[in-house]
Amino acid sequence: MKKVGIIMGSDSDLPIIKKCTDMLDSLEIEYTVHVYSAHRTPEQAAAFTKSAKADGYGVIIAAAGMAAHLAGAIAANTTLPVIGIPCKSAALDGMDALLSTVMMPSGIPVATVAINGGANAALLAAQILALSDEALSNRLVEMREENTRKVLEKDEKICKEFSK
Amino acid sequence: MKKVGIIMGSDSDLPIIKKCTDMLDSLEIEYTVHVYSAHRTPEQAAAFTKSAKADGYGVIIAAAGMAAHLAGAIAANTTLPVIGIPCKSAALDGMDALLSTVMMPSGIPVATVAINGGANAALLAAQILALSDEALSNRLVEMREENTRKVLEKDEKICKEFSK
Amino acid sequence: MKKVGIIMGSDSDLPIIKKCTDMLDSLEIEYTVHVYSAHRTPEQAAAFTKSAKADGYGVIIAAAGMAAHLAGAIAANTTLPVIGIPCKSAALDGMDALLSTVMMPSGIPVATVAINGGANAALLAAQILALSDEALSNRLVEMREENTRKVLEKDEKICKEFSK
Amino acid sequence: MKKVGIIMGSDSDLPIIKKCTDMLDSLEIEYTVHVYSAHRTPEQAAAFTKSAKADGYGVIIAAAGMAAHLAGAIAANTTLPVIGIPCKSAALDGMDALLSTVMMPSGIPVATVAINGGANAALLAAQILALSDEALSNRLVEMREENTRKVLEKDEKICKEFSK
Amino acid sequence: MKKVGIIMGSDSDLPIIKKCTDMLDSLEIEYTVHVYSAHRTPEQAAAFTKSAKADGYGVIIAAAGMAAHLAGAIAANTTLPVIGIPCKSAALDGMDALLSTVMMPSGIPVATVAINGGANAALLAAQILALSDEALSNRLVEMREENTRKVLEKDEKICKEFSK
Amino acid sequence: MKKVGIIMGSDSDLPIIKKCTDMLDSLEIEYTVHVYSAHRTPEQAAAFTKSAKADGYGVIIAAAGMAAHLAGAIAANTTLPVIGIPCKSAALDGMDALLSTVMMPSGIPVATVAINGGANAALLAAQILALSDEALSNRLVEMREENTRKVLEKDEKICKEFSK
Amino acid sequence: MKKVGIIMGSDSDLPIIKKCTDMLDSLEIEYTVHVYSAHRTPEQAAAFTKSAKADGYGVIIAAAGMAAHLAGAIAANTTLPVIGIPCKSAALDGMDALLSTVMMPSGIPVATVAINGGANAALLAAQILALSDEALSNRLVEMREENTRKVLEKDEKICKEFSK
Amino acid sequence: MKKVGIIMGSDSDLPIIKKCTDMLDSLEIEYTVHVYSAHRTPEQAAAFTKSAKADGYGVIIAAAGMAAHLAGAIAANTTLPVIGIPCKSAALDGMDALLSTVMMPSGIPVATVAINGGANAALLAAQILALSDEALSNRLVEMREENTRKVLEKDEKICKEFSK
Repeated sequence: MKKVGIIMGSDSDLPIIKKCTDMLDSLEIEYTVHVYSAHRTPEQAAAFTKSAKADGYGVIIAAAGMAAHLAGAIAANTTLPVIGIPCKSAALDGMDALLSTVMMPSGIPVATVAINGGANAALLAAQILALSDEALSNRLVEMREENTRKVLEKDEKICKEFSK
Repeated sequence: MKKVGIIMGSDSDLPIIKKCTDMLDSLEIEYTVHVYSAHRTPEQAAAFTKSAKADGYGVIIAAAGMAAHLAGAIAANTTLPVIGIPCKSAALDGMDALLSTVMMPSGIPVATVAINGGANAALLAAQILALSDEALSNRLVEMREENTRKVLEKDEKICKEFSK
Repeated sequence: MKKVGIIMGSDSDLPIIKKCTDMLDSLEIEYTVHVYSAHRTPEQAAAFTKSAKADGYGVIIAAAGMAAHLAGAIAANTTLPVIGIPCKSAALDGMDALLSTVMMPSGIPVATVAINGGANAALLAAQILALSDEALSNRLVEMREENTRKVLEKDEKICKEFSK
Repeated sequence: MKKVGIIMGSDSDLPIIKKCTDMLDSLEIEYTVHVYSAHRTPEQAAAFTKSAKADGYGVIIAAAGMAAHLAGAIAANTTLPVIGIPCKSAALDGMDALLSTVMMPSGIPVATVAINGGANAALLAAQILALSDEALSNRLVEMREENTRKVLEKDEKICKEFSK
Repeated sequence: MKKVGIIMGSDSDLPIIKKCTDMLDSLEIEYTVHVYSAHRTPEQAAAFTKSAKADGYGVIIAAAGMAAHLAGAIAANTTLPVIGIPCKSAALDGMDALLSTVMMPSGIPVATVAINGGANAALLAAQILALSDEALSNRLVEMREENTRKVLEKDEKICKEFSK
Repeated sequence: MKKVGIIMGSDSDLPIIKKCTDMLDSLEIEYTVHVYSAHRTPEQAAAFTKSAKADGYGVIIAAAGMAAHLAGAIAANTTLPVIGIPCKSAALDGMDALLSTVMMPSGIPVATVAINGGANAALLAAQILALSDEALSNRLVEMREENTRKVLEKDEKICKEFSK
Repeated sequence: MKKVGIIMGSDSDLPIIKKCTDMLDSLEIEYTVHVYSAHRTPEQAAAFTKSAKADGYGVIIAAAGMAAHLAGAIAANTTLPVIGIPCKSAALDGMDALLSTVMMPSGIPVATVAINGGANAALLAAQILALSDEALSNRLVEMREENTRKVLEKDEKICKEFSK
Repeated sequence: MKKVGIIMGSDSDLPIIKKCTDMLDSLEIEYTVHVYSAHRTPEQAAAFTKSAKADGYGVIIAAAGMAAHLAGAIAANTTLPVIGIPCKSAALDGMDALLSTVMMPSGIPVATVAINGGANAALLAAQILALSDEALSNRLVEMREENTRKVLEKDEKICKEFSK
């Protein structure tokens, strides 16, 4: 199976990436984690990305805050699907990172998930890889069913306790 | 090769979908186009989606405006990757559709592209399908190179005409 | 009297729902509380909603955060009035949930109250049910008068203490 | 059957009200239309509202733009359900009217619909009145089914023309 | 000298009003403080306002949060100048109160100050009353000079400590 | 009676100022109109403002767009009340001018009216001057009554034509 | 004197760049104009930038819309001052480009001017180059004086025509 | 070498200025720090600015919050490059200061950095001064290389610890 390349723009984004790697672990997907900045290490980011396909990666996840150029810069250097996680920082409540990640001009798409959406980025990567991996596809279906069960258990408990 | 399922929430979104299908045509990808509303035809949307994988689809693209629930509703019924196109409508400049599409809760990701980003949705779908289709992957690389050439031609012309 | 069906998208919305049920208790209105997610348990949400009228419900209240599709998804499956409570979550200060709840396309209205407006959702439900329940109507009028009295008591106290 | 009272803050809101009255006509609901300003004719607005229940109204719809106080001012004077339509005006794309209408403090709810959502305000009023009017309830269900048919017709046509 | 009438929509706005009354105390201006809600006590608010001019008031200050209708409702009932203070509440960072206060339609102006701007509301009231009160005008000039001196003292201290 | 000083930051704001001067004409208030930029002619703006009180002005109205510093710069140089009109320009729908005008720091208030609110700025100036001019106060009351009559006439006409 | 390097992300930004080059022409500053996309021609953009200092450039101006990464990508490759012009595009009124340009993380500043601010970008470049070019500095002072004169002429004309 | 003049609008902005002076210290650039308010000490701010060039300053940095007029007011009085730091204050998350600083009208540019971007303001000043100071230019290049090294060290550590 292809690996997932995870890149964060700064190690302060680690808690968001942790939710991402936890989800990949649950789904038994291999990944590497890098700290590459679009602005401070543009060459290393480009080098990683240009060889990503040959190195066995199938999807790249990029997380960054503020004027979050990382996902777009990665996407410019590969035709692998690139998933962007906008990270909320000290001002503007994540709106800056969201717009900087999602509003990509025609030609270079970034598959953007919700602000701080580490787990969903991993799930989206898994859904993409599952297109050619039936076992992973089954694990995704099971996880969905498990989530449905959890909601229904909560529903049963809360419905009993709070209805009148 | 797997097909792309395109769903628009209203036929008023057709101009955006046209940019999407033009791009898929260029890349020689098969697709079907449907008008299904998350609110007016939720059952047909769900029925299409639940059988999409078995019907040979690899990716679903959903375009909707205002409180754009379509992509999320589609994503809830499949583990195929779902790409959301937020469509700008008469008020709020597309911000309503963007937030309604991208801010998905944990468990059900939507790969969101820019407001009215029909062409990029198609490209993202192609990049996903190209993971198991080397010929498509090559067409994507060629298209990128072609785009680069076009920018460089414009650069040459404009650089000559406007520099002083 | 008809009952109120309360649905929250996640049990993390419980504090907001508590303000809602407290108000319904004060007004002696029966209700049930459910946890149904538009995305993780769409079928259960739809099943509940489709039989809601026959099951004796008169109004449904739906609370959700982020890309809050719940109220709209509920509204798509019933002609009972549906009240939406947008819930503030970790980013964007509730704006995402507000726009996702209120900006419904033509054909499927959601009666939206303020962000985190649990008590007002209950009051609105009560005002709707009171159209055919004169006793409830009287309780609503009394509650208004009681609220007016409370404001006037505060006014008297503060006017004395702070005017110069 | 109870009537619907429609109030617009300015006659410039008439095009939005027209979509509202067209929908009420389709559903065979009686209504009166008034121009009352929360600021220029507060007493007439209050007088109308205070006697609205006794005068046979079941729901009041209020449409206003900018710092749209009308729906809230109406709601302060009645326990009938009040539906607010925020109207887009020359600046801020309707956001001012939306926030002024929906963010009501605890105690006085306004059932807010989308910006310029005249038709949905009428539908919501109808759904409320239908709680005690089975014939209206049936007309609402038929209208939904008719809307579903229209979407499916468009779907059939567009699917044939655009799929490849 | 004419008095200042201060009205807050809820006693939770008291900390902001305190900055207002402290400033009026410094400037030796008489005032009364009331808690009147545009929605819960509209009649008392109107009664106070309609007789305000005859009762010796020269300016009215109104503070409210969320869909802040108070200042506009007051302004509708008097031709005295009305100053609005938008108060920040639990969501939307004060933007709702700001737009609800400042975006008044033509005919009924509200002199809006910054979000939570209690002190500036008092100063503005004083500047208005000072038009016919030379002693107050002089106190305002002295306060400005005193503020200038304070800034310059801070400047001197910080300039010494931090310049290099 | 004291005069009103009107300052616009650019002659492109003239249409908004025209609504302002029309209103002052209706109310028989004297005024002068100047084009002074906070940034291109700061000294002339300051000179005008510093002598404004001695020159017989009672209120200053300042209109500007984008990073609208004009009203605040004027307010810094006088203790006369200063009314700010935020003007909508090519981007951001007037939000930039609104925030730049209204969010003044403690010590220097600007009485802000709605975006492009030329007529309301004039009315607010009149309401301030009317505190010591009973004839003007009466004209303001008459204008309000006239506006009420106009709304009621429209109401009568529209009520007849559109109610069913 | 050092040259100014102007880079636009797309030739659709040419009208904004034209205001920029007109201003540079007025100030007799040499410049070259390029079309380089941060995403479609990242290598050419980097190559130009890395040799810019050696090639005689003193300042680089970068204009781009949407998720405007261009100025930041340029800034990552040089220690020359980089000026960013956020360009308004079809949705979101320029807010996306503004936040993507200005909210740069620590270490790589972009000197951001107003949305579509082509002329001001040129002026800022000139002010930077004028630090070591007294003749240019004098031209800047003259231009300011000329602008002041123009405002004062407009002031004289409008003051005569509109004051009463 | 020319000095940097740093001006903050209020001593509450000191923590942001501290990041600015720390960076200037690292780069061995001389500076003075002043507290001047655009509104409370406009004359001292103007006096400092008008003589800044003659006093040996090459760049001015101005930091202010809310309706942040300081940088623009400074820029109006000099042709030296002026860098604006928008400071986040109690409401609106810094958006007010950002728009008030960056949206300058044509003729008077302000080089705006990110909200609370003290360190980047200093770096930008250094990049400007480095145009005529090769030693400073070298220190900037070294700092960039050092930053790159730090990111790569973090990358190595995190890659080892988190990849699977």
